Formats: sequence, C-alpha cells, structure tokens
Amino acid sequence: MSDQLRQPSPELFFETVNAYQRTATIKAALELDVFTAIGEGRRTIQALAARCETSERGMRILCDYLVILSFLTKVNGQYGLTQDSALFLDRRSEAYIGNATEFLLSPMIMDGFEDIVAAVRKGGTVIPEDGTVAPENPVWVKFARGMASMMALPAKLIAKFLDIGDGRNLKVLDIAASHGLFGIEIALLNPNAEVVALDWPNVLEVAKENAQNAGVSERYSTLEGSAFDVNYGNGYDIVLLTNFLHHFDPSTCEGLLKKVHASLAAGGRVVTLEMVANEDRVSPPIPASFSMIMLASTPRGDAYTFSELQRMFENTGFLHNELHQLPPTMQRIVISHK
Amino acid sequence: MSDQLRQPSPELFFETVNAYQRTATIKAALELDVFTAIGEGRRTIQALAARCETSERGMRILCDYLVILSFLTKVNGQYGLTQDSALFLDRRSEAYIGNATEFLLSPMIMDGFEDIVAAVRKGGTVIPEDGTVAPENPVWVKFARGMASMMALPAKLIAKFLDIGDGRNLKVLDIAASHGLFGIEIALLNPNAEVVALDWPNVLEVAKENAQNAGVSERYSTLEGSAFDVNYGNGYDIVLLTNFLHHFDPSTCEGLLKKVHASLAAGGRVVTLEMVANEDRVSPPIPASFSMIMLASTPRGDAYTFSELQRMFENTGFLHNELHQLPPTMQRIVISHK
Repeated sequence: MSDQLRQPSPELFFETVNAYQRTATIKAALELDVFTAIGEGRRTIQALAARCETSERGMRILCDYLVILSFLTKVNGQYGLTQDSALFLDRRSEAYIGNATEFLLSPMIMDGFEDIVAAVRKGGTVIPEDGTVAPENPVWVKFARGMASMMALPAKLIAKFLDIGDGRNLKVLDIAASHGLFGIEIALLNPNAEVVALDWPNVLEVAKENAQNAGVSERYSTLEGSAFDVNYGNGYDIVLLTNFLHHFDPSTCEGLLKKVHASLAAGGRVVTLEMVANEDRVSPPIPASFSMIMLASTPRGDAYTFSELQRMFENTGFLHNELHQLPPTMQRIVISHK
Repeated sequence: MSDQLRQPSPELFFETVNAYQRTATIKAALELDVFTAIGEGRRTIQALAARCETSERGMRILCDYLVILSFLTKVNGQYGLTQDSALFLDRRSEAYIGNATEFLLSPMIMDGFEDIVAAVRKGGTVIPEDGTVAPENPVWVKFARGMASMMALPAKLIAKFLDIGDGRNLKVLDIAASHGLFGIEIALLNPNAEVVALDWPNVLEVAKENAQNAGVSERYSTLEGSAFDVNYGNGYDIVLLTNFLHHFDPSTCEGLLKKVHASLAAGGRVVTLEMVANEDRVSPPIPASFSMIMLASTPRGDAYTFSELQRMFENTGFLHNELHQLPPTMQRIVISHK
C-alpha cells in the first residue's frame, strides 16, 4: 500500500523501539540450540523443551516469536526450520553461522550503540581509543573465530571468480587476513599459489590454524603488525583487501592503497570485498545501514559507494575498477587493476 | 519470492542479530529531535546538523539509516517525513508518541531481555520480585506519563464505540487506570458519566492531573491499591480493563473477573483492551510477539487469544463476548456482557 492510501499507524515506531528484543531472542535461540533441536526432528513444544532443558511455556513463546520473525514455520502446532535456518542456524550444517554472534554481539561492537546521540554529535565512535580500530584490539580475534563461518562462502566465491585455478605461479598478499579464509581458498584452488597473510599477531594464530587445517601451511606465511606500517614486499599478483577499507576515512584508505599499488606486479589486481552502498546511500538496506555500525564503532569509517571507492583507487594510480555482485552474499567486490 | 525458489541468504540472521541498533538509533533520533527539525522544513544535512547541534557526518549517517528503516524519505539528497513520522514523531504534532520510549525503553522492561535463556528455562521473568507486576512498581508511573500519548487514540475510539454519548447516567470503573485516559474520554463524551479510577497511589496522581486538565475532576474519583485487593463497590455500567489481563495467568485473571462481575449492574459491560493474538499465536505480528515481552517481564503473563479470553469470561459468569478491531491501533477490544 502506498504511504498516502493507508491509515496512519504507530506500528513501525513500536517495532523499531522494541527491535532490541529480536537481538535478545535470536541470541537465546542459538544458545539453547533450538534450531538444531528442530533440525533433529523435534517439532513439538514438549519435545523441544525436553531437549533444550527449558519450560514448555518459555519454549512455546520463544518458538512462536521465531515464527513471527520468519526463522521457523508452524503448521498444525508443529515447528519446522525455514530453508535458511536449516542451512545457517542448525549447528550440524557445514554452513552454520550462529557463532558470528561472538563478534557481532561482542561488547566492543554493542558498546558503540550505547550512546548514538554522542556519536552523531561527534561524527564518530565515542568508544575510547578509537573503538574497533585500536591496535591489537582483541575484538579481531573474535571476528576471526566467529565470522569465519559467514566468510567461508564469499571466500570460495572470490577464489572462483578470480579464475586462477590453472596452476600458474601466483603471489598473494592478504591484508588484514583475519581467519585467513580468503587467501586459503586461493591456495586450495591453485597449487602454485603462495599466500602472505598480514594481521596482528594474535589474529594470525587463527589464520595459521585454518591454513594448517586446510593443508596449505607450506605455501602460507605471515607478516605481523599494522597494514599501515609493515613493509609488504612486492611482486604480488593479487592483493586481498577484505572488510578493511570501511574502517577508515578516504585519505587514510588512499595512504594504504599507495602502498598496495607499489607492492603489486605489473598487471596485478586488488580484490576489495566491502559492504558497498549504492550511490543513493540508502540501498541495498544491509550494506547501506553498515554506515551506522561504522559511525558507532570507528572514528571515521563508512560503507563506501562504488564511486567513492573508485576515486580512492584512481587517486592512487590504479587503471580501472570493476564492481561485481557476489550473490547470495550481502557484499560486493571491486577488482582494481594496476 | 517463495522460500523454495530464492537463494539461501544470511540476511535475516544478520539483520535480526543487529536489530538492537534500530532501537538505539530511533531513540537517538528522538532525543536529537530530528523529526521535528525536518517537520520545521530543514531538509538538508547542513541545516539539520546546525539545528540539532551535531556533526554533518553523523547526521548524514543517522538520516540515511532512518530512510532505510522507512521513517524518512530521501529525494535528491533532501530528507522528508513519512506520513507516520509527521503524525507521531514530530514533537509539534498532537499525536506525538516519542515519549513512549520512557516506558518502552525503561530499565525495568529492557532488563527482562538481558537473559532470555533464563526466562525461557524458567517460563517467566527472571527480574527479581515478579518483574513489572511487583506492587507499586514505579515503572507504572513511567507508563502513565510516557504511554498516554499512544493510548489517546484507543481511548477516544473506545469511548465512541461504546455509544454512551446520549447523556444517560453512567457509572464507570477504570481498573489499573494509569494515565486515566480511558475513563476521562468517556466522561468527556457523556456529561453524566461518573468515573472511579483504581491504581497505585503514585500512578493515580497522573490520572488525577489528566482528569483536571480535561475538566472532568468533579466526576472523577479514585480508589488506591491493588485491583486484586481493593473493594470496587458495585452498580457499574462499564468496567474498563485496559492493558491489564496480559500481566497474569488465566486463573489469576479469573479471580479478578469474578470481582468485576460482582461489581457490575445488570446489563453491565466490561471493555477489555488487549494485544490479542490470533488463534495461531503467530499473528498479527505485533500482538502475537507481545507474548515475548510478557515472558521477559512478568512471571506468567501472556498475549491471550480471543478464545482464551472468552473462556476466562465464561468461567466467571459473563453471558457473551464480542471481539472488535480498533483500527488503526495494534490492539483489539473484547466487550463482555453480564
């Protein structure tokens, strides 16, 4: 219905004010492992309450709320998983992403939303010491552990997109490597790819663990420190810049991109994975609203538009940039050519 | 798109985990009075930042997020109010409901969502002393002050619905009167209506203030105490039971309804205003999800279905019950006849 035709309603206001209740409920549902219990075939309140060790009354109210939020189905009083819940929220699924809450709901991120008035006044985070971009912030170990599950698919899609499975020699630099999955997927696809992962030492422990588990440790080395300070070396065919630029303002990004440009071999490419907002800055909803997370948790970060990213790359010597969707993920990639 | 046809997506999970950010943002927008500033004609980031004393960068990110959430429009970089935001969130509007956050986001309500796992296990609130239903809980003064704006419309609609504007003598009991608006609107519509308002003494101060402002004080008296203990008197034509039964379990409700039945004159009516869930308990979204608020904040409260309410009234001697919508509000009324 168009805004003009329908009756005025306080519903959006009421739902938005109470939205924190959704966060609290999905967190509890994951902790109680309700999705796994339903996936195992428990479809009644009685069976679910017994399996998850809760009261029946509490389980009934929880499951009904999860139906309202579209995480569950309810037919004749029996609960079922939606396609997405079966894939992403049943702990037995390989694509389980429930542990992303360890990062997404970590105090470092949530604290930034305690006082949005102050953040809007200031124009950046009011968390002390620059919020999430403080050196060696332990929140990035949580990211590396918790978000790996959400990044597994984009990592596979990017490796495939790059068309490097032909066994050519390939030197890859993974900046702010985190869990390391982006570089590791390339190493898995191309047996002659060598990956250098750069991050804080505590975070690199997670990347090395993952490289070990993937069986690519011999072609996996690390550079410890800040991406702004460490010497990258040179001759890279591919530089991975995933979930990184959004933490900084454009001039800081450009400082980094100059270093990246210098480290690339002729014909080298940068792969930037980002929450890219459309030029209107209000769509698509998830990437565009990512700006608010950056306002709350960083001094000057943002969800950049493609034209803003393009400008940063052009200002630092790159020849041209392509924007690509990465469905079904919420993110997009920019490929920038030296 | 049907759930079967579209690609799997982690979007719902991501949005739900981050939903608390919506709460934080609407709260900040109201505190900064952004809606009023736009209503006054400030439509650019520069003008809004100046008026609300914020950074331009923070205001831009805030306003874009409010567009994403559908509170604002954005056309050619200029922001505007939606119909609902103009009516409900511009402080100059008579229907302004922004101060409802004083109650909706009071610690007493929000604390109940700190540990939903524990509430689901227990089957009721884990807030000490029975949560919001503790005697003389000061949260009800916040309700009376903050929620009056949201209850003004249902109060008018109910008074009109009751068809009592003909000047007949009318004795009205308003149980858990809070701001008093439900009784006051009846007194405004019928000059021979006498209203008795029952609530905790601290809450009745708000009701008396509102009765005074409405010019009906002479026909407005009060009964201090708990609705479960106080002697109501008798001979009432109408008993108002607004936003009350959902706090208690059915047997507690029935204990109260017996008292209510005894207090009514022959042919008397009870008006119950409630978040009434459909029989499936998962629709309509707002009333059905109200169960979760009751789980988090009361020992045994619920968003009852019509058949559950009907059973309580039938068990306590009422002859028949009618369910009525109260558009455009989110609530419904049940009229029960002695």
